[in-house]
Amino acid sequence: MTRLLPVQDSSSFLSTTTIIALTVFFTLLCACIVIGHLLEENRWANESITSLLLGLISGVVVLLVTKFHSSKILVFSENLFFLYLLPPIIFNAGFQVKKKQFFQNFTTILLFGVFGSMISFCLISLGAFLLFKRIGITSLSMQDYLAVGAILSATDSVCTLQVLSQDDTPFLYSIVFGEGVVNDATSIVLFNAVQSLDLGSINAITALKLLGTFLYLFFTSTALGITVGFLSAYIIKTLYFGRHSTDREVALMMLMAYCSYMVAELLNLSGILTIFFCGIVMSHYTWHNVTESSRVTTKHSFATISFIAETFIFLYVGMDALDIDKWKSSNASLGTSIAVSSTLFALVLIGRAAFVFPISNCTNCIKRRESTQIQFRSQFIIWWAGLMRGAVTIALTYNQVFGSITKPLIEAVKLKHAKPAISDETDSPSFEDLRLLFLENGDPNDQGNNQRGPWQSSFRLLISNPTSTVHYFWRKFDDKFMRPVFGGRGFVPFVPGSPSGAADEIS
Amino acid sequence: MTRLLPVQDSSSFLSTTTIIALTVFFTLLCACIVIGHLLEENRWANESITSLLLGLISGVVVLLVTKFHSSKILVFSENLFFLYLLPPIIFNAGFQVKKKQFFQNFTTILLFGVFGSMISFCLISLGAFLLFKRIGITSLSMQDYLAVGAILSATDSVCTLQVLSQDDTPFLYSIVFGEGVVNDATSIVLFNAVQSLDLGSINAITALKLLGTFLYLFFTSTALGITVGFLSAYIIKTLYFGRHSTDREVALMMLMAYCSYMVAELLNLSGILTIFFCGIVMSHYTWHNVTESSRVTTKHSFATISFIAETFIFLYVGMDALDIDKWKSSNASLGTSIAVSSTLFALVLIGRAAFVFPISNCTNCIKRRESTQIQFRSQFIIWWAGLMRGAVTIALTYNQVFGSITKPLIEAVKLKHAKPAISDETDSPSFEDLRLLFLENGDPNDQGNNQRGPWQSSFRLLISNPTSTVHYFWRKFDDKFMRPVFGGRGFVPFVPGSPSGAADEIS
Repeated sequence: MTRLLPVQDSSSFLSTTTIIALTVFFTLLCACIVIGHLLEENRWANESITSLLLGLISGVVVLLVTKFHSSKILVFSENLFFLYLLPPIIFNAGFQVKKKQFFQNFTTILLFGVFGSMISFCLISLGAFLLFKRIGITSLSMQDYLAVGAILSATDSVCTLQVLSQDDTPFLYSIVFGEGVVNDATSIVLFNAVQSLDLGSINAITALKLLGTFLYLFFTSTALGITVGFLSAYIIKTLYFGRHSTDREVALMMLMAYCSYMVAELLNLSGILTIFFCGIVMSHYTWHNVTESSRVTTKHSFATISFIAETFIFLYVGMDALDIDKWKSSNASLGTSIAVSSTLFALVLIGRAAFVFPISNCTNCIKRRESTQIQFRSQFIIWWAGLMRGAVTIALTYNQVFGSITKPLIEAVKLKHAKPAISDETDSPSFEDLRLLFLENGDPNDQGNNQRGPWQSSFRLLISNPTSTVHYFWRKFDDKFMRPVFGGRGFVPFVPGSPSGAADEIS
Repeated sequence: MTRLLPVQDSSSFLSTTTIIALTVFFTLLCACIVIGHLLEENRWANESITSLLLGLISGVVVLLVTKFHSSKILVFSENLFFLYLLPPIIFNAGFQVKKKQFFQNFTTILLFGVFGSMISFCLISLGAFLLFKRIGITSLSMQDYLAVGAILSATDSVCTLQVLSQDDTPFLYSIVFGEGVVNDATSIVLFNAVQSLDLGSINAITALKLLGTFLYLFFTSTALGITVGFLSAYIIKTLYFGRHSTDREVALMMLMAYCSYMVAELLNLSGILTIFFCGIVMSHYTWHNVTESSRVTTKHSFATISFIAETFIFLYVGMDALDIDKWKSSNASLGTSIAVSSTLFALVLIGRAAFVFPISNCTNCIKRRESTQIQFRSQFIIWWAGLMRGAVTIALTYNQVFGSITKPLIEAVKLKHAKPAISDETDSPSFEDLRLLFLENGDPNDQGNNQRGPWQSSFRLLISNPTSTVHYFWRKFDDKFMRPVFGGRGFVPFVPGSPSGAADEIS
């Protein structure tokens, strides 16, 4: 193959530094996976901690090799993170999320993600404003304090993925991770508000405006993601790509999901919310319209890409921690640095406690059935696991400390109690209700014995247990109107093609 | 999720132009796939032509929108092509190549790739040197002519993939594509030679030196790829990743393959040869050591990534064709441009003819059995399909013209003859020989009837049909020594896990 290059310089046609950087980075990624796998049994280690440590070590090595000029091998912009690493992680989370669990706790998630963040934002801003003066920092404006509050009030969904396991603790995972996703919309609203609002005249109307902006952002982002998801389902179902090639189906799913994120960012919406819901719709409809081998491929390749992106982020953060320029540019004394860090840390702790416990107890009052209530122990873990914040840079490093404590914490809480609050009990609470509903609505023979009309009893159930009822009607609607058009489980003719048959084609 | 950004500018934290460019590009990619799928039945169209045309059209649209300032949406460097798009394409080609077919024709491929390119290089350089003066171009030095020869003497493996189908014409595919891969090493040698050699003193010793450099480059690159492949097989077999996660296996295979390319480029070897052989070893050993779902996933995801990269290249080339700056920088008259183009075109035609037909006939003399010989019709297609050259830029556009003619050409040649020369006959030529060998070597009871010793008859067979014999001993060696260590078909305990079971986990 010809390399079209300026005739003058032939051997150096690829920038050598880029190649060195990529080689080192990809070799380290391989090492992370192998070492992480070997340490799998270890309670305190996982891939992300391995990646962080390996990143730190290689940072030190690079420092020594370059004689303390730089610890950075590759200079990554935030673009790399927000354009290429974050979308696959969030998409995969949406694609693999246990949908029933997620939507059962949707009100709680929304409350945490919206009002929780607002409460946290107010407390942290106010606390920083009051306390920083005592430490001796006077150069910050009111807007800076608000920005600090906005930055620190959002949790980090990538960290949550590392710390809470969907299989072990589905309930906690759905709450804390869901909060992180909804947070993204909240933080955009808060940021724009902090930048543009006239701070002198904050009143009830401004607050309502903020809520309005949030609702607009939330619903448009969600709608965009859902629309793209449906579009992909419809295209693949109608054109029947599998007839010709599995690769095209998989490519189309990947590209359309990525498109949804990009379009959302282009329209200044929340790309994270969009691609998350796109993933949910794709797993509910599109995934059932593709061939069997496409199903296996998408399930695992999305997870793999997400896994590589996560490992990459942690590896980079480990390297980045030693960045000399960053340390040089901060000319504060050690004492002040520690004081600022610990103040912020305390504020984050308090800010999160100030909404997790009240909101949990509020929802407990509404949800009467004990199995769907949030026990105190679960509240504690939600509080703790959600403390992780900050996205790409050092923040992630220090937060990882929490991450490594959370896993043993969950173990401890679990072990201490014979019947833990965080068990899977909540996974199937609505079966009884569904049976009841089915009997009351679906079987006309029973109508006579039942004095109330079916809708009345539905309404009674809706009051006593809203989520199950919503779920029931959603399923009816889904089966009758959505699945026939967009495909989905049970609505696509079974294709007897076969991953195992396809797998044997390579020899 | 928090977006760590400078507090000053919040809304524009992602560069808007990048987002617009990515959105347009990924939307176009989706459109290419859908339109390419719809046009599948059409004889003259395929994804690459669709991509080229869509690229052209969007180039025109961008030209109109920007009022003739630029047709480029994204400015891609050659780095993007050589670092990110080419490796997955070549790796996938190696991973999916029909290994038996490829190695059966290996000598022919090597002859084409090495001596063919050399012959072509000499003829084109000489022709350009003699003819360009008549057109009126006098500004080029001897080195420029040699560089032109080196650039135009290599075929383009990406184009070959588009034009020849491995399933329809396995023999032609393996020859032309294999030539393209081997070419990469030749072109590196030629380039370096053109740059560094003292041109005044070209003699037999210089030519031998060149051959030596090629052999060094070829064997080190191949060895590197094979080593990385074996390493991946050994790691995955020993550590048994599948026990914990399919995703890690897939990630490790992807990352190690990419590493092999990067290390080769770092050591100034031929990355294309390296990753191609890495793909071959991985499909022969590693692929059999992973879980069933990993097999399906790798097979399809590698193909998908390669497919996206190819579509991307053609789309970009289509857009790039309208690049105004490029046209502006060429200040030659229209007449001269046409004269130069047609001269070069003629030289490429002649240069390729000058080695395809002689080398084919030479190998025909050595291979006595008719089924392995290269018929004249096949020679013609090899000559024609290999005319495509140039890599990323405009070259690819005008070469696509050949591509669109080659498919109907093959059809025509096929239809004209009831028993085509390019049939799959060559696919299983060695069965009879293998049976003979097996009887003679493997069955001691027949020894008495057979007057010659087994090694004598093997030697006779080696003379009369070298590839089958090599293949037979390779299989013996492989089964006895390689597969027990590195795994491979039949040497890994069957895991009753199952793609279909795994596929049902998502709900």
